[in-house]
Amino acid sequence: MSSRRPEAAPLSEENYRVLDRESLPSYLNEIPAVTDVLGKDVEHEITEIGDGNLNFVFRVANAADASKAVIVKQAVPYLRMVGEEWPLGRDRMTYEIRALSLYNEVVPDLVPAIYHADEEMSVLVMEFLGDHAILRLGMIEGVEYPEVAAHIGHFMAETLFRTSALSMASEPRRALMDQFTMNAELCKLTEEFIFTFPYMDHESNYSNPTTDEWARENIHTDSAFKLDVLGFKDLFLTKADALLHADLHTGSLMVNQDESYVIDMEFAYFGPFGFDVGKVISNFLLCCTSHHHHAGGESYRNWLLDQIPVIWNTFETRFNELWLEAGDSAMLLDGLLTDAEFATHRASFMRNLLQESAGFCACSMTRRTVGIAGVADVRDIEDLDIRSTLEIANLRLAKELMARRGELESIDDFVAIARSFHAQPIL
Amino acid sequence: MSSRRPEAAPLSEENYRVLDRESLPSYLNEIPAVTDVLGKDVEHEITEIGDGNLNFVFRVANAADASKAVIVKQAVPYLRMVGEEWPLGRDRMTYEIRALSLYNEVVPDLVPAIYHADEEMSVLVMEFLGDHAILRLGMIEGVEYPEVAAHIGHFMAETLFRTSALSMASEPRRALMDQFTMNAELCKLTEEFIFTFPYMDHESNYSNPTTDEWARENIHTDSAFKLDVLGFKDLFLTKADALLHADLHTGSLMVNQDESYVIDMEFAYFGPFGFDVGKVISNFLLCCTSHHHHAGGESYRNWLLDQIPVIWNTFETRFNELWLEAGDSAMLLDGLLTDAEFATHRASFMRNLLQESAGFCACSMTRRTVGIAGVADVRDIEDLDIRSTLEIANLRLAKELMARRGELESIDDFVAIARSFHAQPIL
Repeated sequence: MSSRRPEAAPLSEENYRVLDRESLPSYLNEIPAVTDVLGKDVEHEITEIGDGNLNFVFRVANAADASKAVIVKQAVPYLRMVGEEWPLGRDRMTYEIRALSLYNEVVPDLVPAIYHADEEMSVLVMEFLGDHAILRLGMIEGVEYPEVAAHIGHFMAETLFRTSALSMASEPRRALMDQFTMNAELCKLTEEFIFTFPYMDHESNYSNPTTDEWARENIHTDSAFKLDVLGFKDLFLTKADALLHADLHTGSLMVNQDESYVIDMEFAYFGPFGFDVGKVISNFLLCCTSHHHHAGGESYRNWLLDQIPVIWNTFETRFNELWLEAGDSAMLLDGLLTDAEFATHRASFMRNLLQESAGFCACSMTRRTVGIAGVADVRDIEDLDIRSTLEIANLRLAKELMARRGELESIDDFVAIARSFHAQPIL
Repeated sequence: MSSRRPEAAPLSEENYRVLDRESLPSYLNEIPAVTDVLGKDVEHEITEIGDGNLNFVFRVANAADASKAVIVKQAVPYLRMVGEEWPLGRDRMTYEIRALSLYNEVVPDLVPAIYHADEEMSVLVMEFLGDHAILRLGMIEGVEYPEVAAHIGHFMAETLFRTSALSMASEPRRALMDQFTMNAELCKLTEEFIFTFPYMDHESNYSNPTTDEWARENIHTDSAFKLDVLGFKDLFLTKADALLHADLHTGSLMVNQDESYVIDMEFAYFGPFGFDVGKVISNFLLCCTSHHHHAGGESYRNWLLDQIPVIWNTFETRFNELWLEAGDSAMLLDGLLTDAEFATHRASFMRNLLQESAGFCACSMTRRTVGIAGVADVRDIEDLDIRSTLEIANLRLAKELMARRGELESIDDFVAIARSFHAQPIL
């Protein structure tokens, strides 16, 4: 079947043009929901923001009143950070628009509001979050956000449960899946950069001699670990539990002391429950390691580790609440299970999900350490010795979590492994 | 998300009409590939065949030479066996056309040739198999078909491997999945009639008082069994390993002493590998039980049980051959695993698949016994006492296979359970 080509997304070039500082004002002026925010025919102050890896992201403000602002995100048909020589379908914005629209129905307080979405133009105009920081950057600074863990747990419970066969009827569920099946290019990036290249010699991998040597001896030649990772790659490729954010890390969260917003859902697709859960937790663990070097020290490491059970317990509690409230679904009909059987089923589901999340967490920690896309928490440390010591620590913890995931009965078991690991001197 | 409705398949009523004896000749006369077989403007002999559950199926022959014949299968927008009051989208024929077209590329010797496929008309015109019997009917008669088990194994290896992430690249695989995601109505039938209704009190279930009583006491109240079944329902709903036939039983095979043809693939969708494997094996086991009553007796029971390792071993051998020949795929890139790791991975894959197949086999045996759609092997036996004795035997074996699937290291372990079961007196 290798000769079959993917069908092109039905995006016409006729209605597409790349927006820039010159064309943005007239484009935005035609959208009532935007002029409601910015004002009509006002002077705009336009700032290009965002990390610029994939897309153009602008903040457009009323020049006379910077509190009136919107975010404009547009996908271009190539990888923004490389240029036109690396083509990448702009239909990724189609999937971001679809996911963000759904999230606005399900968790409106945890995602930016949409003012305008234009699949043909691959443009999303959304709420500007002026009082919020990227969680990753705040965490590197050692800032405690009292609500973020609960918000993350709530976000995952609502979005995962409500798009799963535990909640939806069979045919609407397949229709929703059908909206995301062809987010194929971004799925392929994850398949390769999270689940493949970091476990072999590959030109895309990050290079730091001491870490490289350790990885060659302890990752590339660890058959059990590699085959475990392959099992999780299989789940990523083939298990369609629910609509995932699929790139849920601390760089995809804008937060302050009271609020949290999830952004950047262009990777959204139907995948395994544990992927979002494991990925976001892995970013807390990676940051925890970095605070053996960063100023937060033991106190902030403890705060980070304390957030993991809050994420999980909020998730588990809300997920179970939704499950108990749910009527008939594709998975369960009233009359099939007794209350006791249903309780056993839910407990078994949660234990399996915890163990699956631990596995995905281990994959994420590994790829963020030796793969192309590191985390600033560690990779921005200039001293190569310190950096490689922290990197090797992350790889060791990843391997331990993967190897011991089958023992995990509760999130406390999971955190106990991390606590015990960080109780030893690392630097 | 329960408010979302499935998108209607883009089938226009404008280009659709139900074909009958009057309209068939002129319809077929316009198709060169059909007149090549039947002759142009000849008199047709038209016979309605098929079990008539879902579709209209006609044999159309040259009235002057019955050896020149074609099969015409057309879906109508309702359940044929009930009538227009039970609507059922005729897009099911779209999926049958797509699957049969793919099978004609992959296993052309094991499926009927296509003369004409018309998605708008929901019509498939295909090769007439004049010298072949429905396998189920031959097996009830005790006929030994020396090649069929190997053909089944070969069919599954080729179709499952070649449409999986073990063979296909990531993006073409998603494009192929996208062709089948919306076969939603027929998936729902399987979800309900195989994985749900037989395990609870439901009006659709078959009724035979002695069997009913046994099922109430030993199926409906067996928590472990029901939760195991629910795990397999989850796989059916969410695991997209490969393009399945998804209704591969002995009634979907037309055979003679030399040849086997797989038909009726309207249920085709991306699902778990083990479903096709377990379902087809279950039909050999159900027939085996029936020959405690039918004339085949012990000798034919042994022939049936002997076919199961032939099915599996042919499947496993061919699947592994294809895997060893395959280049890079979505799942595996050259350079990731050593030869020894790859061998471990394949062995583990096959053991898991065997255990998964045993579970699906148990589900299939149960639903074919207490669910709406029985097998003629047992359900056509008029004596209710004999029938219920055989039915209870099938339920007992299903429960044993489900409970012991985790012990299975090889197909011999599987067959040993069935042999030991059938070595005891049943009638």
